Amino acid sequence: MNHPKVGIIMGSKSDLHVMQDAADVLKELGVDYEITVVSAHRTPDRMFTYAREAAGRGLKVIIAGAGGAAHLPGMVASLTHLPVIGVPVKSSNSIDGWDSILSILQMPNGIPVATVALNAAKNAGILAAQIISTADEQIVKNLIAFKDDLKKKVEESAKEMEGRD
Amino acid sequence: MNHPKVGIIMGSKSDLHVMQDAADVLKELGVDYEITVVSAHRTPDRMFTYAREAAGRGLKVIIAGAGGAAHLPGMVASLTHLPVIGVPVKSSNSIDGWDSILSILQMPNGIPVATVALNAAKNAGILAAQIISTADEQIVKNLIAFKDDLKKKVEESAKEMEGRD
Amino acid sequence: MNHPKVGIIMGSKSDLHVMQDAADVLKELGVDYEITVVSAHRTPDRMFTYAREAAGRGLKVIIAGAGGAAHLPGMVASLTHLPVIGVPVKSSNSIDGWDSILSILQMPNGIPVATVALNAAKNAGILAAQIISTADEQIVKNLIAFKDDLKKKVEESAKEMEGRD
Amino acid sequence: MNHPKVGIIMGSKSDLHVMQDAADVLKELGVDYEITVVSAHRTPDRMFTYAREAAGRGLKVIIAGAGGAAHLPGMVASLTHLPVIGVPVKSSNSIDGWDSILSILQMPNGIPVATVALNAAKNAGILAAQIISTADEQIVKNLIAFKDDLKKKVEESAKEMEGRD
Amino acid sequence: MNHPKVGIIMGSKSDLHVMQDAADVLKELGVDYEITVVSAHRTPDRMFTYAREAAGRGLKVIIAGAGGAAHLPGMVASLTHLPVIGVPVKSSNSIDGWDSILSILQMPNGIPVATVALNAAKNAGILAAQIISTADEQIVKNLIAFKDDLKKKVEESAKEMEGRD
Amino acid sequence: MNHPKVGIIMGSKSDLHVMQDAADVLKELGVDYEITVVSAHRTPDRMFTYAREAAGRGLKVIIAGAGGAAHLPGMVASLTHLPVIGVPVKSSNSIDGWDSILSILQMPNGIPVATVALNAAKNAGILAAQIISTADEQIVKNLIAFKDDLKKKVEESAKEMEGRD
Amino acid sequence: MNHPKVGIIMGSKSDLHVMQDAADVLKELGVDYEITVVSAHRTPDRMFTYAREAAGRGLKVIIAGAGGAAHLPGMVASLTHLPVIGVPVKSSNSIDGWDSILSILQMPNGIPVATVALNAAKNAGILAAQIISTADEQIVKNLIAFKDDLKKKVEESAKEMEGRD
Amino acid sequence: MNHPKVGIIMGSKSDLHVMQDAADVLKELGVDYEITVVSAHRTPDRMFTYAREAAGRGLKVIIAGAGGAAHLPGMVASLTHLPVIGVPVKSSNSIDGWDSILSILQMPNGIPVATVALNAAKNAGILAAQIISTADEQIVKNLIAFKDDLKKKVEESAKEMEGRD
Repeated sequence: MNHPKVGIIMGSKSDLHVMQDAADVLKELGVDYEITVVSAHRTPDRMFTYAREAAGRGLKVIIAGAGGAAHLPGMVASLTHLPVIGVPVKSSNSIDGWDSILSILQMPNGIPVATVALNAAKNAGILAAQIISTADEQIVKNLIAFKDDLKKKVEESAKEMEGRD
Repeated sequence: MNHPKVGIIMGSKSDLHVMQDAADVLKELGVDYEITVVSAHRTPDRMFTYAREAAGRGLKVIIAGAGGAAHLPGMVASLTHLPVIGVPVKSSNSIDGWDSILSILQMPNGIPVATVALNAAKNAGILAAQIISTADEQIVKNLIAFKDDLKKKVEESAKEMEGRD
Repeated sequence: MNHPKVGIIMGSKSDLHVMQDAADVLKELGVDYEITVVSAHRTPDRMFTYAREAAGRGLKVIIAGAGGAAHLPGMVASLTHLPVIGVPVKSSNSIDGWDSILSILQMPNGIPVATVALNAAKNAGILAAQIISTADEQIVKNLIAFKDDLKKKVEESAKEMEGRD
Repeated sequence: MNHPKVGIIMGSKSDLHVMQDAADVLKELGVDYEITVVSAHRTPDRMFTYAREAAGRGLKVIIAGAGGAAHLPGMVASLTHLPVIGVPVKSSNSIDGWDSILSILQMPNGIPVATVALNAAKNAGILAAQIISTADEQIVKNLIAFKDDLKKKVEESAKEMEGRD
Repeated sequence: MNHPKVGIIMGSKSDLHVMQDAADVLKELGVDYEITVVSAHRTPDRMFTYAREAAGRGLKVIIAGAGGAAHLPGMVASLTHLPVIGVPVKSSNSIDGWDSILSILQMPNGIPVATVALNAAKNAGILAAQIISTADEQIVKNLIAFKDDLKKKVEESAKEMEGRD
Repeated sequence: MNHPKVGIIMGSKSDLHVMQDAADVLKELGVDYEITVVSAHRTPDRMFTYAREAAGRGLKVIIAGAGGAAHLPGMVASLTHLPVIGVPVKSSNSIDGWDSILSILQMPNGIPVATVALNAAKNAGILAAQIISTADEQIVKNLIAFKDDLKKKVEESAKEMEGRD
Repeated sequence: MNHPKVGIIMGSKSDLHVMQDAADVLKELGVDYEITVVSAHRTPDRMFTYAREAAGRGLKVIIAGAGGAAHLPGMVASLTHLPVIGVPVKSSNSIDGWDSILSILQMPNGIPVATVALNAAKNAGILAAQIISTADEQIVKNLIAFKDDLKKKVEESAKEMEGRD
Repeated sequence: MNHPKVGIIMGSKSDLHVMQDAADVLKELGVDYEITVVSAHRTPDRMFTYAREAAGRGLKVIIAGAGGAAHLPGMVASLTHLPVIGVPVKSSNSIDGWDSILSILQMPNGIPVATVALNAAKNAGILAAQIISTADEQIVKNLIAFKDDLKKKVEESAKEMEGRD
């Protein structure tokens, strides 16, 4: 993919089954992205380089997913002025996801992370597209079509349920 | 203020002591905003109109703060394609803020809300500015200066603490 | 079914395995109902129309079930003067159900939602019947018979357990 | 007051500062009520008598408030076919109100309690009025006026906030 | 069994897989018991009778297990001067057991329930035996032997683990 | 006091403002007790001696109060066959009392602690009296009178509240 | 193994599937250890002896794992001046691990336990090696190599993920 | 102070009222330390430099305190092979301290942080001294005297309480 606007990173390749949803919905919405593994705790230098160079490489938004004591989204946010979206991942030894959520959400004043729901990488992708769309009318159209599709699926479910005898 | 790019709304005027921080930091970062009260539960029609007309009026981002069973950010997100930032407010009968956080954060797939920390309206403002900055170089500069200022204050604190005998 | 008095709605057809219990117990108690899908986040207009027209169509009570950041019960309550019963559904990415419970229960003053236990659609149905029974003696009789039946089943269990050697 | 339709009870007179809100809003909405102390744990016989005789005395709804291991609403619901509204009260040694909420909300199948938010006796009163209103057009009108008043107050707050320079 | 000193009751026969442990350990410790189903919510009269007559029938301790909004232990404690041991049962729709624990543990001043760990019916049985043992030297001996057996099993595990090469 | 039957111990003298309630109610109920400080973590030898000698000195029940990682009740229970009542104390750096509660309540199979509500030393005292009463008819009478007094106070509150115009 | 420097103990042999990780990583890092079962509640004397003799036998660090009301790490810490590392084990009837964590973490001032994440016996082993390394340059080298290996594995994952088409 | 062996850092000077306890107890125990402010989020470069150079400067242990989404201890641990002790600080907008605790405690395998209780900087200092003492007999003596002092204070409290009439 050329000229990605969204960088998707995750703390471990075991997070991919969750984070793939971000990639898939960005593709559906017509937004170019890149995806890789960056660990705050095991590759701190790599994280520094990735975050510091992100804007210069043309990225507009970073999506970072991590579980447990999830420091990746917040540390990336400390190293760039780009908006950072955090995805709390419910990993195997997580305490029901509370650790991931609070580690990402409760950032101190000055360094926000745009946090989405537990495991909600799809919503992270949509949010990234919404951010890109603030300066790209084509993405606006794609988002409106996407929302319309959500509505239609509910309406079909409704008809089906009402039609049961 | 002319041509606001960020709309700040809150469920009750009693949330203003928290939400004012969003306005203040947007002003500091050079981003035009508007601010008002919109209640999901007491003025649902007003909320519909506000959210549906937001993009047409030129808003690029909406910041919505609410406490308790906080439905305003999520409902506004359902009614617009603009990115919506949610601020969980710790209101008087809130259960330590858990209700506000979970009502805003745990949105279903398809309808993201960019959630910030409890009462962190300042971070909501910074995040809105970061979103605007993806297409506005002046705001990028302002954000970089803002981050630099944060750093300097810590360095001063460090010097002061190290200088204690 | 003609002239339903209770409207059962849910945020997604995936909630039906929980919400069907409400329908079943209403049937058992002799209360006419209707059932369909209405999503606060994906079909906000449909929700507005449903809630605003409910009283005019003769509904006396609305039962609304939803999971995660569950806004459907509270938003419907904001749009009608009918009593609204909320069923917190423990959906797949829910945080042990806490998000559903708090999003439905912690409504602000002025807009109540009658919340029942996690996944307790059966109790929502019984509560709806109790409300209808305040002006319908036949339903009172049905409820008394229902309670009597609960008692008998426990007494049978007791006999069986005491009869073990 | 003659012919009360709503019975308000509470586990201790120390709950009155919370439960008075239910009485006040019922008065405002034109619904006759009675109010007293009934303790599940200290006066179990009194509770039995109160609950068993409630329907025969003409009550249509019972509002029961209690804190800590709050058994009053659920036990009353076990003893009558009337709809019972439970108000979790955040008492002094309560664990942030979680004990009151869960003791009232998580009733087993067969015996619902219509639970409202922590300390939300006002909402309990409104819910009781909504239940009465299913067979009383005057209360419907009062509820509609009440909702209209809520809306107007928000609109005034909005004007005031927008009018700040 | 003749002359039971401990009454084991549970809110539903589905709690038996947990509560049987209390019976088993009482048998092991040489304490006579009886066991049956008593539901606070579905058979309140039965509960009243059981609790009020318990002391007169020669019972010295009551063990009561229940799940969800678990009112049985506390209500029985309100109806007798006997010591009551509460077993929080993690039932199917329980919120991780928190509801059962808090409903049993957080009793108001004046009406204690001796609460044991989640699902810990075995410990309830041991505690009942300890209470009986305050006036029965044979049970003291049995308890001391029981504790000695626990110790020996750990010492065997230790030897086995240390013996791994 | 001569021949105490109940030993009240606490982890720190700062717990006395809570634990004094146990002493006061035991006095009211006519049960002899002793009271002192025993710290599991700061005086482990003292704790061993206290627990090991308790039965020999004629104690029938031990009440142990502690806060935070509260190990005193459970460790004492491991060192004696007497029934041990645990009082979770909400100390200054406690996390809302959850740490005290769970450290005391969640004992492993084999070693029960009879846990009462947060800060409920009064209930610990009553429970100790109930245990003593299983072999002492005078204490039974005192407990029945105590319960009767509780009832009368509620009935007075009720009359007072009903008598308001 | 000769001259162990780290003692690994656990409350029950059922904790071995978790605690084995501590042993394995210590072996990998070249630190001699011993491993056995010591139960605070079932073998308090054994615990006393183990903790009191540990320093004299040449141990430098103790790793203690336990679940539920986990008193082993804190009690061992009260009985020795050696640093004690606590591993909260999520045992079968644990409440999502919260009981284990809080029982180990929330020690009172004066008696620290170095707590690691839920089930994180591997990290306990690494931490023990780090402590030993403060006076052993070979272990420093081993730790640096270990960290380097962690980094390389992430870099390989990254390459693999970036290489997907 | 010359040649500090323990580095105390904190995310903000507002944490000093908590972290000073670590310094004070280290002084009491005869361990040289240094103290300063290092913010993970506001001064990431400073954090990198501090952590990377710590071992070379002769530090043996790092104590890091932070509140909210507390990334400082974990990030420092990722950048050094020294043992890192984390102090969760209950800051003003913290959610009862849960965010600080989970962000520090729940580190992934490979990168431990030795976590102490909420606000327990004193215990962090003692733990650091225990680590230093593994290779310094004088500190062992100081720690033993410190523990002895704790014991004596409890014994005095006990005498005082027993001496009340």
